[in-house]
Amino acid sequence: MSTILIQNALILQVTAAEATVLSGHDLLIEGNRFAAIVPAGQIDPTHGQTVIDAAGMLAMPGLINTHAHAPMVIFRGLAEDVTLEKWFNDYMWPLESNLQPEDVYWGMLLALAEMIEAGVTAVADHYFYMDETAKAVEKAGTRALLGWAMFGNNGLGQIDATGAFVQRWQNTANGRIRAMLAPHSPYLCDQEFLRVCVKKAQQLGVGIHIHLAETMGQTQASLEKHGVTPVRYVEQAGILEVPTILAHVCGATPEDIAILARYPAGIAHAPKTYFKLAMGFAPVIEFRRAGIPVGLATDGAVSNNTLDILESLRLMALGQKHRAGTPEVLTIHDALTIATQESARVYGQPADLGELAAGKLADVVLVDLRGAHHQPLYRPAASLIYQARAGDVHTVIVDGQILMRDHQLLTLDKAEIIDHVRQRMARLSQRVPAARIQTYQ
Amino acid sequence: MSTILIQNALILQVTAAEATVLSGHDLLIEGNRFAAIVPAGQIDPTHGQTVIDAAGMLAMPGLINTHAHAPMVIFRGLAEDVTLEKWFNDYMWPLESNLQPEDVYWGMLLALAEMIEAGVTAVADHYFYMDETAKAVEKAGTRALLGWAMFGNNGLGQIDATGAFVQRWQNTANGRIRAMLAPHSPYLCDQEFLRVCVKKAQQLGVGIHIHLAETMGQTQASLEKHGVTPVRYVEQAGILEVPTILAHVCGATPEDIAILARYPAGIAHAPKTYFKLAMGFAPVIEFRRAGIPVGLATDGAVSNNTLDILESLRLMALGQKHRAGTPEVLTIHDALTIATQESARVYGQPADLGELAAGKLADVVLVDLRGAHHQPLYRPAASLIYQARAGDVHTVIVDGQILMRDHQLLTLDKAEIIDHVRQRMARLSQRVPAARIQTYQ
Repeated sequence: MSTILIQNALILQVTAAEATVLSGHDLLIEGNRFAAIVPAGQIDPTHGQTVIDAAGMLAMPGLINTHAHAPMVIFRGLAEDVTLEKWFNDYMWPLESNLQPEDVYWGMLLALAEMIEAGVTAVADHYFYMDETAKAVEKAGTRALLGWAMFGNNGLGQIDATGAFVQRWQNTANGRIRAMLAPHSPYLCDQEFLRVCVKKAQQLGVGIHIHLAETMGQTQASLEKHGVTPVRYVEQAGILEVPTILAHVCGATPEDIAILARYPAGIAHAPKTYFKLAMGFAPVIEFRRAGIPVGLATDGAVSNNTLDILESLRLMALGQKHRAGTPEVLTIHDALTIATQESARVYGQPADLGELAAGKLADVVLVDLRGAHHQPLYRPAASLIYQARAGDVHTVIVDGQILMRDHQLLTLDKAEIIDHVRQRMARLSQRVPAARIQTYQ
Repeated sequence: MSTILIQNALILQVTAAEATVLSGHDLLIEGNRFAAIVPAGQIDPTHGQTVIDAAGMLAMPGLINTHAHAPMVIFRGLAEDVTLEKWFNDYMWPLESNLQPEDVYWGMLLALAEMIEAGVTAVADHYFYMDETAKAVEKAGTRALLGWAMFGNNGLGQIDATGAFVQRWQNTANGRIRAMLAPHSPYLCDQEFLRVCVKKAQQLGVGIHIHLAETMGQTQASLEKHGVTPVRYVEQAGILEVPTILAHVCGATPEDIAILARYPAGIAHAPKTYFKLAMGFAPVIEFRRAGIPVGLATDGAVSNNTLDILESLRLMALGQKHRAGTPEVLTIHDALTIATQESARVYGQPADLGELAAGKLADVVLVDLRGAHHQPLYRPAASLIYQARAGDVHTVIVDGQILMRDHQLLTLDKAEIIDHVRQRMARLSQRVPAARIQTYQ
């Protein structure tokens, strides 16, 4: 069994009471799990063991991206400074009519390279041609929870087809790959369609990943059209009976929050996209007060521009302090709880991920805190939220395998990936409005 | 005369109409000014010339930080998750009672190392023991516009004393160092005190750097105490007659904006601090519509945590889109105008800084756009706002001198600076509330 000894790190520990940082500790990995965390010097390196010197670095659980459309990096930068309606109808959905399976494969590899470099070890992804994303994840060595997106107007047949995708990939790659069903949203999938999705999810024993109440405008539109909010609409269709990842929910009413609190639902929170598309802020503080877990997310890179969860962490804390009108909310402890254990809960693996502790799966990120922008290091936990940049991520381990060491990717050939993506730019950036794959109303 | 030839760069050009990026251009620097920008290959390297290969990099004007308390990095992380009132009275002002001149020297060097690494080539700084900051700037090779902070209750004698500081340093270090008067704010300096500052500024031929209407709460308090807003209060004292840097002004009323538009005033905008301390958003769009220039800023690192102007740029654009409720405002063109020419105007050197053009002072930053997070590179101008991180800054030149090349600082010894700052941590972090230097009411 392969073992890795990380020596002399700062160790992030997030308990129910506080976020603390242990200094001078060693972290032992055996196979794909943590075996021990002890004061430095208590474990002697053994023959054949990989030893990593982590002096000046903070070890933290691998970051989890609870909602993305990762392969969309291939369109990054093509829809700037436009309203949400134009973003969908004049840009994204025409652009996606160009999409071919191989684009998704190379786009996913590029996205995984960017995410590994930023310490993101797992992603709940929601897109098209998902076998291609699964192959890319297999190769990269990360974790993923994959859902093949469905629009109601493409017919019920998709539910069996994407269910077959779930069966092909569920718990493959040593358990690193899991799958869900992924109806797009209540505004593009009606209750009849959603009810069949629930039945299929229950048959397969998986959850559902769906966009919900993305803005207060959508909530208003749903009230006008259906007489109920989007949350109530999906509840009526039974969606909330299975474990769900609910993306965004910026348009939640107090009644919606009370409904969601009764179900095994998790919220995926992508604040940069909300700022950039002026979607309003999600009520993160109210969700958590009601016991609904919140996970960090990036959404796709055409709205978010990056797949950087440290950036989402910072923007969540900044945005919620602004929204509440006081700096005393969304504290360091709250923010780091969301970034670790709560994201693991939304991702559906709270027992195995989101914590550095013996017995947990060995997903760990070393963040270099030696840079000038972290000095003097009075509060490493604050540094992680308010100073750390993706470029500070030094080493990344997933499932006991080193994916990046000293900023060098070990499983992916970045130059080759970028070259493949570049060759596609001219074709992918063509925009034919009449060819749009869907309409946002 | 020393010359530098930067070859094959992308070149950021911001005109009144648009922000564009030229590809494949060379940039020639002779002495401390740009001599030419021409398509790559037209200029042959000459003997003894420094040649920099900038393939894959974007050349942009050096970033300007229009309001900071840079040496405060020495207290970074010591006041988290607290209200503005507690931040001042229970943390900052007690902590600053520990301050000694040598702390300011080493703190300024650390801040300059962080800023150079982030592409920040000029800072308008407002703090104490400013001779120490000037010595640090002289050594680092950057530009600075320095003001020695004054509190009214320390007496009128300060005005002569800080005026003497202005005379010692104005236009030294080949013009890299300039100086201003720096009364703290109207809530800590009354009109009598401010009037004497104006007279002194006029005698010296310099401007005034002051905090103003930092929150709407301050505007309310001023209305209750003085019957006028802070903007009107300083106008009555004559402050706006001289060129000013007005820090924050989040509490501006529509009437305040109309007043400011009549004077040579510039706004320093530090959005991360406003988010983190829940101070509300400044009306950036309204300021600019009235013709008042806005410059980017970081404030001090105890509120802002970083001195990273690329981060301020991103947060300004995100925050203003959110505030306006539409993504169509604060466009790429607006944001990059603010980051370049408008910041140069607030900084008081619009003729010489903020533009890559023959004849301008040679302050230029090379931002590496080869990383995975910039690919594929459809829109380099969008990348600069929404993807670039301080760590992408590769090379920094100020006044024709290379301060950082390939991420290596050439004028500062970072390890020595960090070591000196660390030795001060125990003493600096002592907090004696009774020893506070000032009180915020």
